[in-house]
Amino acid sequence: MFENKNKKITSIEELGEFKLIEHLTKNFELNDPSTLVGIGDDASVINFKNNLSVVSTDLLIENIHFDLTYMPLKHLGYKAVVVNLSDIYSMNARPSQITVSLGLSNRFSVEALEEFYEGIKLACLKYKVDLVGGDTSSSSKGMIISITAIGQASKNKISKREGADHNDLLVVSGDLGGAYCGLQILEREKAVFNANPKNQPELDSYSYCIGRQLKPEARKDVFELLSELKIIPKAMIDISDGLSSEVLHLCKSSKIGCNIFEEKIPIDPEVVKICDEFKINPLTAALNGGEDYELLMAISQSNYEKVKNHPFLTVIGHFTRKKSSAKLITSLNQEIDLTAQGWNSISESN
Amino acid sequence: MFENKNKKITSIEELGEFKLIEHLTKNFELNDPSTLVGIGDDASVINFKNNLSVVSTDLLIENIHFDLTYMPLKHLGYKAVVVNLSDIYSMNARPSQITVSLGLSNRFSVEALEEFYEGIKLACLKYKVDLVGGDTSSSSKGMIISITAIGQASKNKISKREGADHNDLLVVSGDLGGAYCGLQILEREKAVFNANPKNQPELDSYSYCIGRQLKPEARKDVFELLSELKIIPKAMIDISDGLSSEVLHLCKSSKIGCNIFEEKIPIDPEVVKICDEFKINPLTAALNGGEDYELLMAISQSNYEKVKNHPFLTVIGHFTRKKSSAKLITSLNQEIDLTAQGWNSISESN
Repeated sequence: MFENKNKKITSIEELGEFKLIEHLTKNFELNDPSTLVGIGDDASVINFKNNLSVVSTDLLIENIHFDLTYMPLKHLGYKAVVVNLSDIYSMNARPSQITVSLGLSNRFSVEALEEFYEGIKLACLKYKVDLVGGDTSSSSKGMIISITAIGQASKNKISKREGADHNDLLVVSGDLGGAYCGLQILEREKAVFNANPKNQPELDSYSYCIGRQLKPEARKDVFELLSELKIIPKAMIDISDGLSSEVLHLCKSSKIGCNIFEEKIPIDPEVVKICDEFKINPLTAALNGGEDYELLMAISQSNYEKVKNHPFLTVIGHFTRKKSSAKLITSLNQEIDLTAQGWNSISESN
Repeated sequence: MFENKNKKITSIEELGEFKLIEHLTKNFELNDPSTLVGIGDDASVINFKNNLSVVSTDLLIENIHFDLTYMPLKHLGYKAVVVNLSDIYSMNARPSQITVSLGLSNRFSVEALEEFYEGIKLACLKYKVDLVGGDTSSSSKGMIISITAIGQASKNKISKREGADHNDLLVVSGDLGGAYCGLQILEREKAVFNANPKNQPELDSYSYCIGRQLKPEARKDVFELLSELKIIPKAMIDISDGLSSEVLHLCKSSKIGCNIFEEKIPIDPEVVKICDEFKINPLTAALNGGEDYELLMAISQSNYEKVKNHPFLTVIGHFTRKKSSAKLITSLNQEIDLTAQGWNSISESN
């Protein structure tokens, strides 16, 4: 769809397995002082001294987690890294290393993989993490990406999913529903393109949401802000499956309930516009859409003054007593029980 | 082929994504004192104190890396873990944690996955490592397994691929070619079975090699032996792609050559018998067959007395001067340049 057809094509067989990974990673420099051994040995070696090590891993499968029709490979590489770093930040930890393993069918050329690794490199530079390992192998169908991120934190700063208490504030970074709306636009334009390949996609007026879908960012800035403000979230999670699903994770792990106020949920005007076009309630996009990679946290009431007017953060509710449920309070003051409808659920994809 | 047809079948959709991983991992206990947070949060947390952290990751794809026709799922789970632990031991490090992510098509039932996780659990118990994370997602085709292993070592004990010097001994653990021969037998019996499903496979007289293929072990015992003998290998690698390929990695990383003596290469009598049936030279199975997961190391001459008669270890040659090549010295005293023919190469699988 957006592919440049005039590029040089080298088959992966021409290079061979060992040379491929060497070739793809030759321009990666090691920047983190804790990286002692990077790519090229059986395992990487990381020196953590007195810090804790935090590890997160993700498996991404073509046509389940991404669609190469509208996802440029460079963006895919970038996003695959960002998604994992987001998990490290959500522990209130600093990511320092990643490993990347790929399964590839023979339809991928070396040049295509170079684009993918350009995206990975860009993410490594932006987030200051080192690529330290991984491998490539063939796949009988499509592209498979497995990424592991490793991070560091001092013992008293880790934010788990458990730890939220009654009356703690429920705070979210950024705004919600954008990545989901971006996906709706891309899927619509793909259908239009498939019906008539001469149609060019009209994407300009949806750039915010398409960017949220194709090139999301992990909230490194929020992680740093929390450190500056001397706030250690009592519980934290990143929003990959929609607000509803994530807040239920926090409530379940912390064994308490919460109230979320509909009118407090931060939603971008472009999300409202797209939802209007698609006849979706913007609230549904925020609650059940996924891939926003914002941070959702429990913060002690005593920190209210620090966060209340910060442009990165919004207080959307508070936690309630033990064994009460997670509720949405609508603008008409109705109480609705939240349910998990993670859009990436296994049953949906089959 | 070896499947029990009378078992209860629960579809993955019945459980749902979140409950599936909870269900599959509910019987895993955390044993390693360095594991602070295990499964169920965004990332696991590991406390390494003054040690180095060693990380290795592997991606295994159905019909590329394993064939479920003859690979029982429990064995597959066990092997998938062992393969990763082998990479940690080959750094002369002690594995302590693993993460497991799965991609699954809808042909897999919950019961099938339980068998897979039984194998993972068995490996965790045997090797004393903790399962600390991972996820499951759907796959449009077949089964995809991504495993990351994390280990620990003190700084002065790490054995990389580089570090071997002229005159160092080249030492291998166990014997070679068995896993490759086991695969040949399994492939033959699969073809016989496919031709006539009433034929029952004849496997009894090949149990050593089939075991090497279906249920390999990582050389924890050799890692512990080296520590007891106070030997720190100057360079080490595990043999996953055949002796030839691995010795070339050591030579390349250490920038030296080596001589391997044909008659010193340890080969089990069952390998010789199977090679005779298949009209293969047993040497080819040892040099170019894969998946033996033995350790190949460079050891200082001063350690010769410690290793020369040990039943776990065989001196098969020595390293030679800078920039010389890796050579096989045959029993007729011919010199043959070794070339890498890793059997898992990407070009072969396409």
